[in-house]
Amino acid sequence: MIDLTLIGIGTGNPQHLTLQASAALNGVDLILIPNKGAGKDDLAGLRRQICDQVIKKQDVKIVEFDLPTRDPKTPDYRQRVDDWHDAIAGVWSATIAAHLPKGGKVGFLVWGDPSLYDSTMRIADRLQRQQKIALTVIPGITSVQALTASHAIPINEIGAPFTVTTGRQLRDHGWPDSADTLVVMLDGDCSFQSLDAENVQIWWSAYAGMPEEILISGALSDVSDQIIKTRATARADHGWIMDIYLLRR
Amino acid sequence: MIDLTLIGIGTGNPQHLTLQASAALNGVDLILIPNKGAGKDDLAGLRRQICDQVIKKQDVKIVEFDLPTRDPKTPDYRQRVDDWHDAIAGVWSATIAAHLPKGGKVGFLVWGDPSLYDSTMRIADRLQRQQKIALTVIPGITSVQALTASHAIPINEIGAPFTVTTGRQLRDHGWPDSADTLVVMLDGDCSFQSLDAENVQIWWSAYAGMPEEILISGALSDVSDQIIKTRATARADHGWIMDIYLLRR
Repeated sequence: MIDLTLIGIGTGNPQHLTLQASAALNGVDLILIPNKGAGKDDLAGLRRQICDQVIKKQDVKIVEFDLPTRDPKTPDYRQRVDDWHDAIAGVWSATIAAHLPKGGKVGFLVWGDPSLYDSTMRIADRLQRQQKIALTVIPGITSVQALTASHAIPINEIGAPFTVTTGRQLRDHGWPDSADTLVVMLDGDCSFQSLDAENVQIWWSAYAGMPEEILISGALSDVSDQIIKTRATARADHGWIMDIYLLRR
Repeated sequence: MIDLTLIGIGTGNPQHLTLQASAALNGVDLILIPNKGAGKDDLAGLRRQICDQVIKKQDVKIVEFDLPTRDPKTPDYRQRVDDWHDAIAGVWSATIAAHLPKGGKVGFLVWGDPSLYDSTMRIADRLQRQQKIALTVIPGITSVQALTASHAIPINEIGAPFTVTTGRQLRDHGWPDSADTLVVMLDGDCSFQSLDAENVQIWWSAYAGMPEEILISGALSDVSDQIIKTRATARADHGWIMDIYLLRR
C-alpha cells in the first residue's frame, strides 16, 4: 500500500511553504524529485533546497529520477501529453517499487499548487488505476497569487468574474467575452502581442515570488516592448524563465 | 508612517498558514480584527485562534473593531459597496491612530488570499490616499484551492481555460462561452439551479479546509437537491456557511 501526497510548495520562495506542507514533507519515507536535464528550469535544485531547509527527520529518502520527454513525432497535442503522462507514471511506479518494495509514504513536491496547470494529479490517477494508492493533495501558493501579491492588486474587479487561460488559448481564440480580467499562464511567446492593446492594462511578473522576481506594469501599449525585451534578457541570463501576467480592459 | 501588511491566512485551517504569514504575524505591533456581530461568520474567533497559535512575540497588540455594515437604502450595488469601503477605511484609520499614534507596523489577517474577492486591498488603497502607508500583501491559500485539494481534482482540463465567477453572475448571465470549467464563489442561493444540468459535473465544498468541511460531488442532476438540503442544514447548525463549487461540462 502506497500513501501518495502531492505537496504544493509555492513558487520557489521557501517562505511560501504552508505549515501543512512542511508537516507533510517531514511525514514521508520517500520524496521523488524529477530531473529535467541541464538547460531546463532550476526546479530540481530548488526542490532539494526546500527539502534541506524544511525536513528535520533523518530517514526521509530523497530520490531524483529522469523525467521522460514528450515525443515531438506525435502530432496530436492531447495524444502527445497523454503518452507523456503514461511514461512518467511508469517511471514513478518503478522508482517507488525500487525504493519502497514493502510500500510506505511517498511525497511529491509540486511547484505552485497541484490543481493548477500541473500534471502530477493526472499521473497519480494513472498509478491509482494500477495499484492501491491513497492520494492526498496539499494546496500551495500559486504564481497567480505571487503575481497579484507582488503588484498589490486584486485579481477581480468588484463582484466580477475573471478567466485564467494559457498563451496558446489567447493566440488561438483572442480575448474571451466572459471576463474583462484575464490571467495568462504557460506563455512562451508573449501572446499579448496578438491583442488590440488599446485600453488594456498589464501586470507582468517573471520568477514570481523568488529573489530574481521582475515586475512590470502599465498600459499594454506602453510596456509591451519593455516586457518582450526584459523577458528575452532574463531568459538568456538565467537559462530558463517562468512568467505570468494579468490583463484588464 | 504606517507599514500595513495584508496577510492571507488560508481558509480557517491553521495548517494553511505559510511561513511568510507566520513571520509577518510575529513582526507587527498591532493586529486589527473585524467584528461582524453575532450571527455572522465565526471569523473573529478563528482569527484570534490563529493569532494565539502562531504569535510568540509578547508585545503584539490585538484589537477588534466593529465592522460597519452596508446601507441597504443605497440602491446601486457598486455605490453601496464603495460607501461601505469608505466607512471601513474610516474605522481602520481611527483605530490605527488610537493604538499607534506614532506610527508602526499593522497587520490585517485576510481569509483566503487578499487578492481574491476580498475588500481589504481596496480599503488599504483608500488609506494610502489619506496618509503615508507602505503596503505589503502576503498570499494565502484560497477556498478555491481547498476545494480542489479536498476533492483531489485539477482545476483545469489540459491546456484549457477556466473562469472564476460569482453566484450573482451565474444567475444573471448564465454559463459563459469562454470556458468549460467554472468556479463559483459568493453564492448564497445555490445558483447552479439556474443551469441546464445535463452533462454538468459539480464538486461542492462547504467550510473548505476546515474540520467541519462537507464534500459532495457528482452529476449535477443527481446531487443538486442533496447539496441544497445539506447546505440549508449546515447553515442552520453552524449559524453561517461558506461554500464554493466547481462546475465542468
